[in-house]
Amino acid sequence: MKLINLNADMGEGYGQYGIGNDAAMLEVIGSANVACGYHAGDPLVMTATARLAKEKGVSIGAHPAFPDLQGFGRRKMVLPLDELEAMMVYQIGALMAVAASQGSRVSHVKPHGALNNMAAEDMEMSRAIARAVRSVDPGLILLATAGSCLCKAGIELGLPTAGEIFADRTYDEQGNLTSRSLPHAVIHDPEQSAEQILSFVQAGKIITPSGKGIETPIHSICVHGDTAEAVAIAHRVKERLEQAGYRLAPLPEVMGLA
Amino acid sequence: MKLINLNADMGEGYGQYGIGNDAAMLEVIGSANVACGYHAGDPLVMTATARLAKEKGVSIGAHPAFPDLQGFGRRKMVLPLDELEAMMVYQIGALMAVAASQGSRVSHVKPHGALNNMAAEDMEMSRAIARAVRSVDPGLILLATAGSCLCKAGIELGLPTAGEIFADRTYDEQGNLTSRSLPHAVIHDPEQSAEQILSFVQAGKIITPSGKGIETPIHSICVHGDTAEAVAIAHRVKERLEQAGYRLAPLPEVMGLA
Amino acid sequence: MKLINLNADMGEGYGQYGIGNDAAMLEVIGSANVACGYHAGDPLVMTATARLAKEKGVSIGAHPAFPDLQGFGRRKMVLPLDELEAMMVYQIGALMAVAASQGSRVSHVKPHGALNNMAAEDMEMSRAIARAVRSVDPGLILLATAGSCLCKAGIELGLPTAGEIFADRTYDEQGNLTSRSLPHAVIHDPEQSAEQILSFVQAGKIITPSGKGIETPIHSICVHGDTAEAVAIAHRVKERLEQAGYRLAPLPEVMGLA
Amino acid sequence: MKLINLNADMGEGYGQYGIGNDAAMLEVIGSANVACGYHAGDPLVMTATARLAKEKGVSIGAHPAFPDLQGFGRRKMVLPLDELEAMMVYQIGALMAVAASQGSRVSHVKPHGALNNMAAEDMEMSRAIARAVRSVDPGLILLATAGSCLCKAGIELGLPTAGEIFADRTYDEQGNLTSRSLPHAVIHDPEQSAEQILSFVQAGKIITPSGKGIETPIHSICVHGDTAEAVAIAHRVKERLEQAGYRLAPLPEVMGLA
Repeated sequence: MKLINLNADMGEGYGQYGIGNDAAMLEVIGSANVACGYHAGDPLVMTATARLAKEKGVSIGAHPAFPDLQGFGRRKMVLPLDELEAMMVYQIGALMAVAASQGSRVSHVKPHGALNNMAAEDMEMSRAIARAVRSVDPGLILLATAGSCLCKAGIELGLPTAGEIFADRTYDEQGNLTSRSLPHAVIHDPEQSAEQILSFVQAGKIITPSGKGIETPIHSICVHGDTAEAVAIAHRVKERLEQAGYRLAPLPEVMGLA
Repeated sequence: MKLINLNADMGEGYGQYGIGNDAAMLEVIGSANVACGYHAGDPLVMTATARLAKEKGVSIGAHPAFPDLQGFGRRKMVLPLDELEAMMVYQIGALMAVAASQGSRVSHVKPHGALNNMAAEDMEMSRAIARAVRSVDPGLILLATAGSCLCKAGIELGLPTAGEIFADRTYDEQGNLTSRSLPHAVIHDPEQSAEQILSFVQAGKIITPSGKGIETPIHSICVHGDTAEAVAIAHRVKERLEQAGYRLAPLPEVMGLA
Repeated sequence: MKLINLNADMGEGYGQYGIGNDAAMLEVIGSANVACGYHAGDPLVMTATARLAKEKGVSIGAHPAFPDLQGFGRRKMVLPLDELEAMMVYQIGALMAVAASQGSRVSHVKPHGALNNMAAEDMEMSRAIARAVRSVDPGLILLATAGSCLCKAGIELGLPTAGEIFADRTYDEQGNLTSRSLPHAVIHDPEQSAEQILSFVQAGKIITPSGKGIETPIHSICVHGDTAEAVAIAHRVKERLEQAGYRLAPLPEVMGLA
Repeated sequence: MKLINLNADMGEGYGQYGIGNDAAMLEVIGSANVACGYHAGDPLVMTATARLAKEKGVSIGAHPAFPDLQGFGRRKMVLPLDELEAMMVYQIGALMAVAASQGSRVSHVKPHGALNNMAAEDMEMSRAIARAVRSVDPGLILLATAGSCLCKAGIELGLPTAGEIFADRTYDEQGNLTSRSLPHAVIHDPEQSAEQILSFVQAGKIITPSGKGIETPIHSICVHGDTAEAVAIAHRVKERLEQAGYRLAPLPEVMGLA
């Protein structure tokens, strides 16, 4: 039976502020990317998220970001690589201790927002992130956009590297996400989303609009909650994958590291 | 040969800002309390401090604080205990990962500034801090003002707990630090400082102005750098202790945990 | 025709985070207390709030707070008075410029959360706040809890000072708000709230549970949105006041400064 | 007698952290660019700087920046233009109130660091900044790098716009500052600096290494303190300008707005 993972961002509240629908998402995903205080998430939110994920049998990963609470980590910033690397280490460690305090552990790392987008196209940034992960614990899984520079850097540095595709986004001819500035960039229909995911996962390829297949390892599907339909999409994707014979599992199990 | 430790706060710069004389202090102390980003210290500063301490054979501890960069952690804040606990966990973890990235490890925890002062007189705050430390790693040493509530809480929760006295401060009849609002609260003369330390350490007691002895375990001497004479005081204290037959060592060794 | 004001806190979102129901509240209140970035509110949120308030004919005031986004300004902090004063000036000025950019102006100042609570019982803090307001513009109205130290300090320093009572809170025998730790501290029933407000306003007194009247000038009623019923309470209070012959107006008009 | 202005960045400490040599610089400059809390400067530092500048007869301007204390505003950030505009307004207003509290006023605005560098080459960013300034007070002087996009935007939007050249930097054939990555980008010799400034000011042109003159209005000379020689350079530049018949004055006087 083939294994596959569903991941979603989580714990992105801050102080009095709530955001997203973590409780509903935790019922369907296998792995949660937990904000580490730089773009969202404070120590209490992180603690509650780690506890809830543990209760639900959902594995957790650090979701480090640029230091930008005001912009929710979605603003491009240009940082020296050594500082970027140190910031990654800091955030991963903060969540590791929070996890330990809840009898849990961090099993993966996935960069957030603008950091993830920039790293996807920048080998030097990607290597800095991968170095940070390795320096903290070489057994941590790096969860990266399938085919991205970050994916390459993770493999290059010997990290267990998981490739992810996106449930609610369309892809262009190069196998990249269609720019959000274009119509049809975001998928709102659960059926369309599940259809795309299933075709990619079964082919082991990203299939472009023209039907071209771009081979890339796919270990996980990101069902992030940018849209109102996020939970419905997640459920439908899960259902269709299970009908097709896949078993959904936390990321360490999918990677053979559980 | 009896062992004793000298500790000092370190890594309290931030971004472009420098403060203190870390390089000189690292030549004389055995253990450094490293700022964790809440009152001072950013990931780069923390990384550089961990690296330097390792080179010098100085053990490091987390120096968590209130979230108050503007006030350098010296302002009293009233926090819910669960939030305080989560903030401690967060900061300790951040430094643990930074240390790991430098091939080093965190061996103790000492709260900073207003947090340390408030906890010293508040058992509930002290227990929250001790719980945080224990939940991350029950082998971490809690470094606390000799005789304080924090010392009691550390022992109560089963943590290896080290008592510290201060090289540059006088004590009152109750065995507490003389309030900074009073004259003679701060000692500027290295000889006077060394004299006091030696008498306390040899007696195993805090000796009050009237000559009364308050028994308390003393494992470490804090030589923090509030004053221009800090480095000179640290050297003289060390010298006098060595002349009296003490060997200065990192905190884990003094606690029998090395 | 007698004038009275309804005020509410507003613009307390931050970045991606929203909170409260500003649009609905702006339909019923006469004056808005706008967060200034320290406990909530970023420049974009402040700008949008100032614009919306202007469109609705609602006067705005600065709602300065402790520097504590994580705690939403609800944590007690102990600050040197000169720093507190400077922080008030800073926040008031920030909103003044935002208002100017929207063709509007700031007409009052009301401290937020823990700062307001602490100042209510502390003449020195209250004087520091009043000094800050006066130093920026002696024509600014200080909006303070009726009978509080802040009210006294405003009058003492010659500021136009408006006394406010709370729509959703009960009062104790001393004329203070019943502590939130006690049952019945918060009023959830619009009718009960309107009844209390009407009796206080008509008597020109805070009436305690035993029926004692504590004379105090009442210019404004705070209908802050801590509860789900906030908008309903605001509407019912307004209705009952209008039925009793009061006209609701922005604060400057109530104070004779429009 | 021809007027010219010397300006320098100032008030760039934060909390316990000091930086720069403000007291010495205030003896020689005519105008100070005061940090507004985003890259440096807290309300107390701003207050002290405004007071000191007033005592010395030095005019002050707001020195707004990206929200980046950790990076001292030197990191490139990509912000939506409406947010950038709102952030400028916020910071300018904060300093205006601080100035008012000290019986002083803000007479100019000069963006800081990466924001200034990015705006210099980006008309849309420059217009957003100029709109912000104008929306707060159309009488505020915009102090911009001579020949930059920001200079053009200021003139386009009808602001009194002052062009500045740099005392401690060399220029390339395009009339831009030599990149800091190249040798000879920074001038350390007071005589060389004064020589360059004098030749530019007397010609009313930036003179490139090949001797080409690029015509541009020059109202002010920036003597920022990146280097140890900053104060010496400032004094020598002033001396040489005075010997050549120039009178040094605050910016409003140079712009005919005093």
